[in-house]
Amino acid sequence: MTSPQATTRQDCLALDAHDPLASLREQFKLPEGVIYLDGNSLGVLPRSTAARVQQVVAQEWGDGLIRSWNTAGWIDLPQRVGNKIAQLVGAGDGELVVADSTSVNLFKVLSAALRITRADSPARKCIVSERSNFPTDLYIAESLAREHGMRLVLVEPEDIAQHLNADLAVLMLTQVNYRTGRLHDMAALTQAAHAAGGLTVWDLAHSAGALPVDLRASHADFAVGCGYKYLNGGPGAPAFVWANPRHAERFWQPLSGWMGHAAPFEFTPDYRPASGIARYLCGTPPVISLAALECGVDTVLAADMTTLRRKSIALTELFIELVESRCAGLQLASPREASKRGSQVSFAHPSAGYPMMQALIARGVIGDFRAPDILRFGFTPLYTRFIDVWDAVEQLAQVLHSGEWREPRFNQRSAVT
Amino acid sequence: MTSPQATTRQDCLALDAHDPLASLREQFKLPEGVIYLDGNSLGVLPRSTAARVQQVVAQEWGDGLIRSWNTAGWIDLPQRVGNKIAQLVGAGDGELVVADSTSVNLFKVLSAALRITRADSPARKCIVSERSNFPTDLYIAESLAREHGMRLVLVEPEDIAQHLNADLAVLMLTQVNYRTGRLHDMAALTQAAHAAGGLTVWDLAHSAGALPVDLRASHADFAVGCGYKYLNGGPGAPAFVWANPRHAERFWQPLSGWMGHAAPFEFTPDYRPASGIARYLCGTPPVISLAALECGVDTVLAADMTTLRRKSIALTELFIELVESRCAGLQLASPREASKRGSQVSFAHPSAGYPMMQALIARGVIGDFRAPDILRFGFTPLYTRFIDVWDAVEQLAQVLHSGEWREPRFNQRSAVT
Repeated sequence: MTSPQATTRQDCLALDAHDPLASLREQFKLPEGVIYLDGNSLGVLPRSTAARVQQVVAQEWGDGLIRSWNTAGWIDLPQRVGNKIAQLVGAGDGELVVADSTSVNLFKVLSAALRITRADSPARKCIVSERSNFPTDLYIAESLAREHGMRLVLVEPEDIAQHLNADLAVLMLTQVNYRTGRLHDMAALTQAAHAAGGLTVWDLAHSAGALPVDLRASHADFAVGCGYKYLNGGPGAPAFVWANPRHAERFWQPLSGWMGHAAPFEFTPDYRPASGIARYLCGTPPVISLAALECGVDTVLAADMTTLRRKSIALTELFIELVESRCAGLQLASPREASKRGSQVSFAHPSAGYPMMQALIARGVIGDFRAPDILRFGFTPLYTRFIDVWDAVEQLAQVLHSGEWREPRFNQRSAVT
Repeated sequence: MTSPQATTRQDCLALDAHDPLASLREQFKLPEGVIYLDGNSLGVLPRSTAARVQQVVAQEWGDGLIRSWNTAGWIDLPQRVGNKIAQLVGAGDGELVVADSTSVNLFKVLSAALRITRADSPARKCIVSERSNFPTDLYIAESLAREHGMRLVLVEPEDIAQHLNADLAVLMLTQVNYRTGRLHDMAALTQAAHAAGGLTVWDLAHSAGALPVDLRASHADFAVGCGYKYLNGGPGAPAFVWANPRHAERFWQPLSGWMGHAAPFEFTPDYRPASGIARYLCGTPPVISLAALECGVDTVLAADMTTLRRKSIALTELFIELVESRCAGLQLASPREASKRGSQVSFAHPSAGYPMMQALIARGVIGDFRAPDILRFGFTPLYTRFIDVWDAVEQLAQVLHSGEWREPRFNQRSAVT
């Protein structure tokens, strides 16, 4: 894929005019005066969400009350929304459910994966992951490693292959790294992990809805993912969990709550896991947030993922090209090769990344900062235009050249940075 | 407490006219033509919720986007709403947080309680609970017992005391039984468990917001509870979790997600638990559902809990009196003594409980059925009137005497019963 030639603002307008996905931007309510390059942290609000949430609150809850578990289909929501997400990640119908948070789901699948590998090979002592994997993934793995007397081995991405050996129990990776946007080859690494006798757990937080994912074709073992990034499900939207059907029924997962029971409303005192992925449900799901998630997932289903990926690459290549030509001092921290990158671009600044990002946000261009030195920009092709890329770089260049980021107000840390 | 004298519908109207809590009903949007006696399964919609949820969706998410973690205080919501719930259950400020589901929170606190007792006394092998405890509690305990090579000992409520011995690790109870409404003496049982060398885990699902609870004065060790019953938080509202400060920092809990980290936004690869109860947070919370929960909690904070309890007892005593005098064939399945009962009344019918409840619901009186034979009626004093009790029993009597419950349409099982 070659980068689009865009050396003027006019060129960007022309690219937007020919963008086959341009009309999908109409699905969203974007605030005035903002260029939003943080959809990889929190996706924007779909136009359909407010009315749907209002319907759930006022009619389904307010009027229907407890009856809505049946009449409004609340009881089926984890599966219904799960089946929609399944289409985006190469999973089959009935193989994926929405539940809990990514962290909680990771605990479930990593527990299951460890039990499976260690039932077969008790000597396998290692969970291998990437040192800069998203911290919550590492914290959950650390907890389970401690519990099971195992080791969590953290390595650099280029060293993963050499750690897939006879000690491997589970290789746990986020497909797209949250800091650098580096995209792992899921099929190749899964194959290598299997060749070493281990299993794989994939976190799709930064890939589901951002690029084509094919869990089945990759022969992956387990996966989890996030509802509030590229799936536009709203703040803290519930997450999802998938188990390859060859593993789904092999074990209980330890969070054996009533929604994962074979017959939750028989109220039996002993746990009997549901068949298939439903046993990865636990407690009662947050229905309002779950209904909002469905609206977000629908916005992604409206796009063809191949076209979406093509646009994502064009946007990120253009951004890299413009920043490198206009913003000296920023170092590309993402892979330069588009095929090795998700839908985000990160630049490092050795000392002033945080205030630079605050100054940029004050100008209405919202990216985020990731300690210690990363300015991170997410490009959600559903609603990001080429003109946004141009204008964002214009503002970033002005921040750098004006030196305004030295102002004290841009150097005060917030709770969430 | 003596039962109010109400032998006519007019008497009930008079009781409502003198009810000091009567005006609190105005806080809710109750559907026309419905008498709702299922607030112990899903509380009704507060009037404030729809506007608050709309604000979160349209303004905080739609306009504020990622900035709202700081500017709208999303990051503090688990603690802010937790501190409000703390006031209802006798917990101190900063001791209780909102997170995940009741099942997931139970996994956290039961794991912690088991680690604490077994660190001191590895020989303690038993988790003791009630045979008819809510199933999800038993399923989670079963999972942990299996994991740790322990036994889950299920006993009848009157036999609990005799099982608190040198084998006891943890006594895990729901303060008010979901089927019978039987209320355990939290202080006495906690004292007995401690005397035996064990710890206690209390599920407040059917007591928080329904009656005065005093975790601190009872010297309880851990507690969890539900947001969508008496707290009126909406379908699947997030749950809450409390640890007595003497235990809060003693161990990690195993669901060590990033929101429970001492510094989540430092993104360090190693887990360092937050101080106090914050380490019981795990992943990103469902903000929309959490904001709705706050509206529900506020409706309960508007009431004085002693007055609320007095009304709850009056409502349930009246219901028992009227049903027993007018509905032959139904057997009281709740404790007759008010001090041993939560805010619900259950009646058993040996063969036709399910269709009777369906026929009653078709008449606009909503209770629920709990297999195999329980007709369950919840009385939320915030919005239930004495006249509702009268009218509900009138409809129930008509269902019984007409025999309409024999119609096939009342005998078809729904997904959620």
